[in-house]
Amino acid sequence: MSGHPFDAAIALQPGGEDGFTGQTSPAYANFIGPYGGITAAQCLNAVLQHPGRLGDPVAFTVNFAAAVADGSFTLRPRAARTNRSTQHWIVEMVQGEEVVATATALTALRRPTWSGHEAHMPKAPPPHEVPRTQRRGVAWLERYDMRFLLGMIPRDWDGQGAEESLSRLWVRDDPPRPLDFASLAALCDVFFPRIWLRRARQTPLGTVSMTVYFHADAAGLRSAGSGFLLAQARGQGFGGGYFDHTGQLWTEQGTLLATTHQVMYYKE
Amino acid sequence: MSGHPFDAAIALQPGGEDGFTGQTSPAYANFIGPYGGITAAQCLNAVLQHPGRLGDPVAFTVNFAAAVADGSFTLRPRAARTNRSTQHWIVEMVQGEEVVATATALTALRRPTWSGHEAHMPKAPPPHEVPRTQRRGVAWLERYDMRFLLGMIPRDWDGQGAEESLSRLWVRDDPPRPLDFASLAALCDVFFPRIWLRRARQTPLGTVSMTVYFHADAAGLRSAGSGFLLAQARGQGFGGGYFDHTGQLWTEQGTLLATTHQVMYYKE
Repeated sequence: MSGHPFDAAIALQPGGEDGFTGQTSPAYANFIGPYGGITAAQCLNAVLQHPGRLGDPVAFTVNFAAAVADGSFTLRPRAARTNRSTQHWIVEMVQGEEVVATATALTALRRPTWSGHEAHMPKAPPPHEVPRTQRRGVAWLERYDMRFLLGMIPRDWDGQGAEESLSRLWVRDDPPRPLDFASLAALCDVFFPRIWLRRARQTPLGTVSMTVYFHADAAGLRSAGSGFLLAQARGQGFGGGYFDHTGQLWTEQGTLLATTHQVMYYKE
Repeated sequence: MSGHPFDAAIALQPGGEDGFTGQTSPAYANFIGPYGGITAAQCLNAVLQHPGRLGDPVAFTVNFAAAVADGSFTLRPRAARTNRSTQHWIVEMVQGEEVVATATALTALRRPTWSGHEAHMPKAPPPHEVPRTQRRGVAWLERYDMRFLLGMIPRDWDGQGAEESLSRLWVRDDPPRPLDFASLAALCDVFFPRIWLRRARQTPLGTVSMTVYFHADAAGLRSAGSGFLLAQARGQGFGGGYFDHTGQLWTEQGTLLATTHQVMYYKE
């Protein structure tokens, strides 16, 4: 995997007081600052790289507290509680003296149990039969091969929005890269803002909090390889400057890998 | 509101190093330790009671790190970042020297914007036409008037589970109490474990992380008064010892108040 821009973007160096330092990556730049998914992956990677970590991530919440400036940052992961098979982490991302992101993570030694996913993958034509959706303008869009099935960004910003904001797409890293927890966390943020579908209007906005529940362990993610994932998201509540969405990601074979939710700020 | 068991249960006293102390409440006891919803409400109340708080809660995640022992606890809320109209909190709940829960919260000054909730309330007979569901055995169940419409706990623990785990119920505090952020956070945890519906088997389990997105400000919650809320939840992924659900809560008039997600540990 060496040489992949994702690995370069989430690379951390040990640095002082049980923390890490890292650098923002021009390859994952958004309109202002970095793609939120890469910030999420960096925060999670601080847990994954910590020598005291127990098990695999199960639940992960990242809060985007301020714009991340281009340049270096410090990550401070701390195990607030370690049990026999679970561990609770608090992470802070700092630039200068300012916190720019916070996160919590639950890691756990997962054991085989009864299983039976209830969120089934919707029927979809296979990814090789769906043309790649061309989306340009910012660097991070080039880092993902997206193939929209439903709920693409409005063609005309004419204010004639839709009643519903369901989007569904095939997506994988570009160039392809074997899936792991950090890249799956980043993929959970690929959904463009649901409010664009509802309003067909552009307005200043940004994600303020995102949660990911992982439904596979490290071996389960490895078996997904570098294939496409089917990703979908749907808006729920919109008002008072904030809206949320709920989403799911499946392997091409239909195995649920992650469920995710986020809330975005918007103006007007 | 004085004298309501919920107010007594979430009451906090200022105590050392910018923190608070509180006591678990027998009125909200669960099988082992307190009802998770009351622990969530206590963590959120530490933010709500903090003199430095800016605005109303928008996003709130609580992680149940260990069993909360009956008795006293300390809450340590800290504003990790304060912006012009938003604030990011980290909270730790401590007993002795051990962290038993962690939480993050985003509070914000909400402003009027375009709004248009997409998660619509399903049709349901009004609460006064639905008989109260009798659920006994632990104290906290008596603190809520629940009226199930769909997906009640299995009558027989015969291992013959259902394909789907959707539950829908009317619910309010008992005795009735005007809704606020703390009580709404607690109400987000009223759903019994989805895996009971799927398996019709009892197995050791517990919530490990819950997220709530609030879709109303303080005035919006006040207007809900002490009426019933329609609450629903549905499981998503089940495997490797963890499952999640996604849920929504509406006023009797059909206004979306909160969306919520949680992940539970289970054995076997």
